[in-house]
Amino acid sequence: MFMHNKRLQYTVRVSEPNPVLGSFMLEQFGGPDGELAAAMRYFTQGLGEDDPGRKDMLLDIATEELSHLEVIGSIVAMLNKGAKAQISEGSMKEAELYLSLTKGGNSHTQSLLYGGGPALTNSSGVPWTAAYIDSRGDPTCDLRSNIAAESRAKIVYERLINLTDDPGIKDALGFLMTREIAHQKSFEKALYAIADNFPPGKLPGLKPFADTYVNTSQGGVEQNGPWNSGKQWDRVDDLEAALPADGGDGDATVQLSSIDTTALKALATRTMSQQGGDPKTGADLGAGPGAGKVTDGDKGGAEDMDEAEAMAKKRTAA
Amino acid sequence: MFMHNKRLQYTVRVSEPNPVLGSFMLEQFGGPDGELAAAMRYFTQGLGEDDPGRKDMLLDIATEELSHLEVIGSIVAMLNKGAKAQISEGSMKEAELYLSLTKGGNSHTQSLLYGGGPALTNSSGVPWTAAYIDSRGDPTCDLRSNIAAESRAKIVYERLINLTDDPGIKDALGFLMTREIAHQKSFEKALYAIADNFPPGKLPGLKPFADTYVNTSQGGVEQNGPWNSGKQWDRVDDLEAALPADGGDGDATVQLSSIDTTALKALATRTMSQQGGDPKTGADLGAGPGAGKVTDGDKGGAEDMDEAEAMAKKRTAA
Amino acid sequence: MFMHNKRLQYTVRVSEPNPVLGSFMLEQFGGPDGELAAAMRYFTQGLGEDDPGRKDMLLDIATEELSHLEVIGSIVAMLNKGAKAQISEGSMKEAELYLSLTKGGNSHTQSLLYGGGPALTNSSGVPWTAAYIDSRGDPTCDLRSNIAAESRAKIVYERLINLTDDPGIKDALGFLMTREIAHQKSFEKALYAIADNFPPGKLPGLKPFADTYVNTSQGGVEQNGPWNSGKQWDRVDDLEAALPADGGDGDATVQLSSIDTTALKALATRTMSQQGGDPKTGADLGAGPGAGKVTDGDKGGAEDMDEAEAMAKKRTAA
Amino acid sequence: MFMHNKRLQYTVRVSEPNPVLGSFMLEQFGGPDGELAAAMRYFTQGLGEDDPGRKDMLLDIATEELSHLEVIGSIVAMLNKGAKAQISEGSMKEAELYLSLTKGGNSHTQSLLYGGGPALTNSSGVPWTAAYIDSRGDPTCDLRSNIAAESRAKIVYERLINLTDDPGIKDALGFLMTREIAHQKSFEKALYAIADNFPPGKLPGLKPFADTYVNTSQGGVEQNGPWNSGKQWDRVDDLEAALPADGGDGDATVQLSSIDTTALKALATRTMSQQGGDPKTGADLGAGPGAGKVTDGDKGGAEDMDEAEAMAKKRTAA
Amino acid sequence: MFMHNKRLQYTVRVSEPNPVLGSFMLEQFGGPDGELAAAMRYFTQGLGEDDPGRKDMLLDIATEELSHLEVIGSIVAMLNKGAKAQISEGSMKEAELYLSLTKGGNSHTQSLLYGGGPALTNSSGVPWTAAYIDSRGDPTCDLRSNIAAESRAKIVYERLINLTDDPGIKDALGFLMTREIAHQKSFEKALYAIADNFPPGKLPGLKPFADTYVNTSQGGVEQNGPWNSGKQWDRVDDLEAALPADGGDGDATVQLSSIDTTALKALATRTMSQQGGDPKTGADLGAGPGAGKVTDGDKGGAEDMDEAEAMAKKRTAA
Amino acid sequence: MFMHNKRLQYTVRVSEPNPVLGSFMLEQFGGPDGELAAAMRYFTQGLGEDDPGRKDMLLDIATEELSHLEVIGSIVAMLNKGAKAQISEGSMKEAELYLSLTKGGNSHTQSLLYGGGPALTNSSGVPWTAAYIDSRGDPTCDLRSNIAAESRAKIVYERLINLTDDPGIKDALGFLMTREIAHQKSFEKALYAIADNFPPGKLPGLKPFADTYVNTSQGGVEQNGPWNSGKQWDRVDDLEAALPADGGDGDATVQLSSIDTTALKALATRTMSQQGGDPKTGADLGAGPGAGKVTDGDKGGAEDMDEAEAMAKKRTAA
Repeated sequence: MFMHNKRLQYTVRVSEPNPVLGSFMLEQFGGPDGELAAAMRYFTQGLGEDDPGRKDMLLDIATEELSHLEVIGSIVAMLNKGAKAQISEGSMKEAELYLSLTKGGNSHTQSLLYGGGPALTNSSGVPWTAAYIDSRGDPTCDLRSNIAAESRAKIVYERLINLTDDPGIKDALGFLMTREIAHQKSFEKALYAIADNFPPGKLPGLKPFADTYVNTSQGGVEQNGPWNSGKQWDRVDDLEAALPADGGDGDATVQLSSIDTTALKALATRTMSQQGGDPKTGADLGAGPGAGKVTDGDKGGAEDMDEAEAMAKKRTAA
Repeated sequence: MFMHNKRLQYTVRVSEPNPVLGSFMLEQFGGPDGELAAAMRYFTQGLGEDDPGRKDMLLDIATEELSHLEVIGSIVAMLNKGAKAQISEGSMKEAELYLSLTKGGNSHTQSLLYGGGPALTNSSGVPWTAAYIDSRGDPTCDLRSNIAAESRAKIVYERLINLTDDPGIKDALGFLMTREIAHQKSFEKALYAIADNFPPGKLPGLKPFADTYVNTSQGGVEQNGPWNSGKQWDRVDDLEAALPADGGDGDATVQLSSIDTTALKALATRTMSQQGGDPKTGADLGAGPGAGKVTDGDKGGAEDMDEAEAMAKKRTAA
Repeated sequence: MFMHNKRLQYTVRVSEPNPVLGSFMLEQFGGPDGELAAAMRYFTQGLGEDDPGRKDMLLDIATEELSHLEVIGSIVAMLNKGAKAQISEGSMKEAELYLSLTKGGNSHTQSLLYGGGPALTNSSGVPWTAAYIDSRGDPTCDLRSNIAAESRAKIVYERLINLTDDPGIKDALGFLMTREIAHQKSFEKALYAIADNFPPGKLPGLKPFADTYVNTSQGGVEQNGPWNSGKQWDRVDDLEAALPADGGDGDATVQLSSIDTTALKALATRTMSQQGGDPKTGADLGAGPGAGKVTDGDKGGAEDMDEAEAMAKKRTAA
Repeated sequence: MFMHNKRLQYTVRVSEPNPVLGSFMLEQFGGPDGELAAAMRYFTQGLGEDDPGRKDMLLDIATEELSHLEVIGSIVAMLNKGAKAQISEGSMKEAELYLSLTKGGNSHTQSLLYGGGPALTNSSGVPWTAAYIDSRGDPTCDLRSNIAAESRAKIVYERLINLTDDPGIKDALGFLMTREIAHQKSFEKALYAIADNFPPGKLPGLKPFADTYVNTSQGGVEQNGPWNSGKQWDRVDDLEAALPADGGDGDATVQLSSIDTTALKALATRTMSQQGGDPKTGADLGAGPGAGKVTDGDKGGAEDMDEAEAMAKKRTAA
Repeated sequence: MFMHNKRLQYTVRVSEPNPVLGSFMLEQFGGPDGELAAAMRYFTQGLGEDDPGRKDMLLDIATEELSHLEVIGSIVAMLNKGAKAQISEGSMKEAELYLSLTKGGNSHTQSLLYGGGPALTNSSGVPWTAAYIDSRGDPTCDLRSNIAAESRAKIVYERLINLTDDPGIKDALGFLMTREIAHQKSFEKALYAIADNFPPGKLPGLKPFADTYVNTSQGGVEQNGPWNSGKQWDRVDDLEAALPADGGDGDATVQLSSIDTTALKALATRTMSQQGGDPKTGADLGAGPGAGKVTDGDKGGAEDMDEAEAMAKKRTAA
Repeated sequence: MFMHNKRLQYTVRVSEPNPVLGSFMLEQFGGPDGELAAAMRYFTQGLGEDDPGRKDMLLDIATEELSHLEVIGSIVAMLNKGAKAQISEGSMKEAELYLSLTKGGNSHTQSLLYGGGPALTNSSGVPWTAAYIDSRGDPTCDLRSNIAAESRAKIVYERLINLTDDPGIKDALGFLMTREIAHQKSFEKALYAIADNFPPGKLPGLKPFADTYVNTSQGGVEQNGPWNSGKQWDRVDDLEAALPADGGDGDATVQLSSIDTTALKALATRTMSQQGGDPKTGADLGAGPGAGKVTDGDKGGAEDMDEAEAMAKKRTAA
């Protein structure tokens, strides 16, 4: 069961309202790497986890992330406090209010729709979605996902810190950023406390494909690194020769029943392309005296775009 | 620039059509850990990457994932080939067709809406969304996200393999699963080839909070592990005493201008709650002779639910 | 700050695993009226609320809803516990596992993608979205939204109770359903403790339009009720005569600058329809010997559909 | 069947084009409380309603909301009329056009993607989704949801009125705002014309939980109001003592078959955490000479953030 | 199988970084008519297509669209290259960085969340969704959808060209725009190479309804064109007389079993509206001394809105 | 302004309730090609259209589509009428009700969440989204999009007709399908009444790229058709030789300021990969005694999958 203490985990001291900055802060409230995503990621994993140690850790951290959601949301609320009152009371001139809402971010939506309260959207106004959560119910996957999520959250906090010089906000963001580092460490320890954690899951890989590096992007200088060279790797450079990987014919086939085969033939006959000829098309009908034309430049380029614009003007004038 | 060879990277041999199984396979076509997600994750990172080695690796693997998208999509197409023809030609009796579409998965939508072609949805019919992609433009984050994504994809393939006994499908899925293992290895090598990769980004953490474990979930047996105990960790068990972490008052504050303060006071006055009293409410109005009642059982429980149902029946009968 | 006790607010005793029932229960975990929606609705309102009494109430109830999220999620976890183990360990025959996943709900996605853990989706697998949350930052709106949300949550629990005969689940659902009733009462009290709560907000309505009922759906028997008749209401039955409501010309106009007017004229000229004539179209091109045909039946009807199907068969055969 | 008269329900007179203001107006066209949401909410309820009186009312109001959708959409079209022509004809210099599109709201998307036509998005460009609609098929829920929806729509119109000083737009918005008040009244009358409307649905609540207020948010001054005090309420302040509410053990349990138990044990063994020890982790590997460092300040704070930034700079320079 | 050459299909030369312009370009990267949408539209159709000629064409064009995705993504990457470095290194003053991110488009999200890399969103930050793809598995539909999609993509490129005067960007956009024209031509040829392509699919239409034009929008001047007049069309102007089209009673009916009928009656009784009377409502309770008031103006209008605002101010003052 | 007549445009006679069939019908209610999509597509175009003839046509057809939305929604309501009553009244045994909800489609969500009323989702329960609407504000695009949309809607109706043998439903669906044919004809006429409708918009294409067919998918038999061969087309088969199309170097470049260059160098240095060596990785740490293993088979294949499963079992047992 959850309980709540009215004090924040970290004191929030904001110098002055600033709805645009508030809308940037939403990135960590209702954005993909924000605190709701973190809390729900660990909470759903915790509910499904049977191992008592990992379950406890997941619920500890999920609960702390909820407390962080409260901290970042309180920053947003403080930054919007003036806008909220002004839009509620209509006490500014329309023109002033309008100007204050057209400065950037999604602060206009924040004010118009959410009335200045913290909304579970990212900084562009996209509503939070559980599609952000990638819990899969296997600890060797989920812990890796958590490690990655903490590292992303750390970076977004770093970017927010780079953006503001309000010392109280910088303080609180520094606290939140550092806690993500601590959480990443915990998840790393939990992953490596599982002896056999790679590859994740239970089925081992198939030998012929597990150490092959397929060099599908070619041309220009080949770049090497430990990810594609060294004794571990079998590297495939001649793609055509190695295609398909199983030595078959590279086709997709299925065995159909006779009833399916009959229907398929009827379908093929009905939608067959006529052989040869050059059918008249809707585009042929629609390419009027000017419209079907192209510019004469012998290669595409900015001059041709100018020429194209001139021709387009002629087309309108005509 | 991309090019394409008509042969698949791995030959697809399907024993017989099975739209429900086809709809399960969509999990790796248009699902969150599917091949489009993988391809687009690495492709968008590659476009934004300036390091030539990592850029090449990202485009190599992105291109291979597109080839995997083609393999899994071809499996789906084969599994749906019969249904596609039948629904196009209307050559089955309605009842038979209806029965064939009500068996599970989202195979009905697959047939009705997508006509049996592979659709970029997961196995429940949820359209693929770029919200699944978590590229952040920092290699020490993105490589961790890629490692996690590969581990998730591996598990979902493992689960699909556990589900079918068609040997041709099992083969192709085994190939695809193993390639995810190889890709995870490449991303691991690329991450650890960056000397200072932890914490990700540039700003270091703040010492007082970087090694603290906050034990927010208490009650019952405390579970310990390397994630919360050992000499690295400062553990906080007495939450109230440590609240807030900065030693402040735990409140959120902002300095308002006088014009904002005036508007805020007007707002407070206008929406003030009346002190004391017990206002009559809409629910009070609506709690009719039977509706507001509750069951008498002295604790909630199945018997009370039975009693509740009996009372509900009476309420209808009355 | 949030804290957590490992005991649930209500004990969960499930008789036996049942993933399909588990997938139904998701409606109140990650569905639109589920507990996450409730918790986040009140939490975001609480953060933005300045009135200390309402803020406290909102955080009290938000915190309790998080505890309910834990209860319903634990029910889901218990119902999936067997499926989770089976799919992880691959210890069933493929055919058995396949059969167990094709029985209904979105239990196949639950198992394949989420590995049997509770996922923040509704019972059809649609990920939770903050688009469900309708906090607007005005207490006379938000409290009404909360009242409505509690009443919806009550109904969905009632429907779930009607669906299962597992006594432990029925118990817990009865508890959760009843708490929604209690919460609705609290929100009702809070709304009516605001003296002037109707109309919401600050601007009064315009007299000529505030008591008018516009009878836009006509034909057949007119139905009356206190919502459209009685001395309060001015009813508009002759729509044409009353159109537009302001006595103007009912057109939309804007004053354009000369530069805009010039561009608009060019646009109009360029995209003008040719007067008269019957232009040949792409459909005319495509209406082949059989395709453009229609059936001869003198009215649409089931016999004509049969005729249509016969003609369609001829078309394929040809 | 629907019919349409080309005149608007209210005349729209716009003073001059203003795409940014147009993009704000979209909040009531394609936003969550906008007119499409209203029309579809009542229309879907009306189709499912069997009571002839309520059905008629729902279709009356749904039809009027469609007419309002036309009014607000016409305002948007007028505000964008100049931008539409300019972007179509390319008759402005690029720089001028660019400047005109970077002023705020989502007016750039409006012009680029929608060509200046009204789009079914909110003011941040988020496409309208049926997830906004909360019809549940029970009149005592749905009418409450409608009451709440009308109150929200009223507020958003009020905020838009506060934002513009164009008298023609102010007029039309005033009309639309007032009609929401009238509709709320109709829905209130319809709700209270149902004798027993609380609690909604049929099942009564369970007595032990229906009048309990759980004080989950504590610390600081306790705030009281009619929502948690007075003779109606049993208040729980000692949360631990009252946990769980049913007097059980607060655990979640399920009875597993032996086959499930076996699989579960295998899973537990395979993913067990090693007891004791401090496993080396990926983060340990990645904490290079500088990266793993933290700042020395004895508490987090703005000075420490400055120190952190200095150290971060050193880390780059090194 | 896909392969990749590191050279772009068209050289990208950008004059200088401009994140706002970069965010506009996203419309063709991750927007609804962008290159990912195009590539995936043709790729999914190609996988499901059995006709070898059309399949080859679809994969040819899908592959080229992936190459275009790379070109437009590279433009975005170049336009963001400076912002990416600045936000990563934190080497600008906070205020400068803040100012550079508040200029328009969703460039702030681009920088904060995506770190300056090209993201699969549109220019407002809405993540790409497979809901944009309308492949239906019937070639006479899908080719029409492709023709339409190419025409839309052409227009959005035209609008982007009108927006920038960077010659290198204009060049590359001109190339991409022209390729959409070429692709539209190919799809037109493929459609009209199918002899019977209208109506699409197999079932012919029903004669009584296939040439009827229903004039549902009336009032004012009737506008005629080849779409509703000429000898092909039977036009219905008297809607009431022609209602319903089948000559029935225009009602919806279903035959219920007795068990359903009983349940339906119970439902009707339970939720019946009370006949007559004027029930007191929540709004009646909430219309306080000032709140329920309306302004006295005899018609809505700007003056009344002024009056309304005056009254609203009084309501606060009181 | 919209008005409504209570009679349907086509009489709906349903033989008996069938919630699963009702859930299939939702494809044309709240699905991507359904009637709401159609109505909103034409309505938004009509509001933005300045040409009076096309505007009238768009509003005529939009209004008729709303009437079709009512017809298909009424079919859904009739098919759910029994389920609605049963779930509301709880008058069936739980087991029976449960069985009736697990038969297919999303009928369980329909009942649980929407209470049997028609919901604006597709047949898999995905909420309708305005992302389905592709109006772009240019008539030569929008009319093509409308033509394509009508052709898709026609096909989905055809598939639904093939699925049911209820004659009343077949009748109504036949009517709706035929009206889509008629609408397509109107839009075709309107498109070709614009003299110059190809290419759409105003800018002509660039000659060197407008008739080129790029043969990107090679290998196996080349397939020809009027879309890539004939005198119109310049075909590129040697992709490498023609790369890039503009004769440049195929690179992406941008001119950076010195301040950006400095930041970029710092970023490159900080995130550089170590040259040479084979860094130890997290996967190396995690590849325990069994986990890192692969099967020995010399090619992937079903036997190898069997071997893999055997090894996996051993790994658990160990």
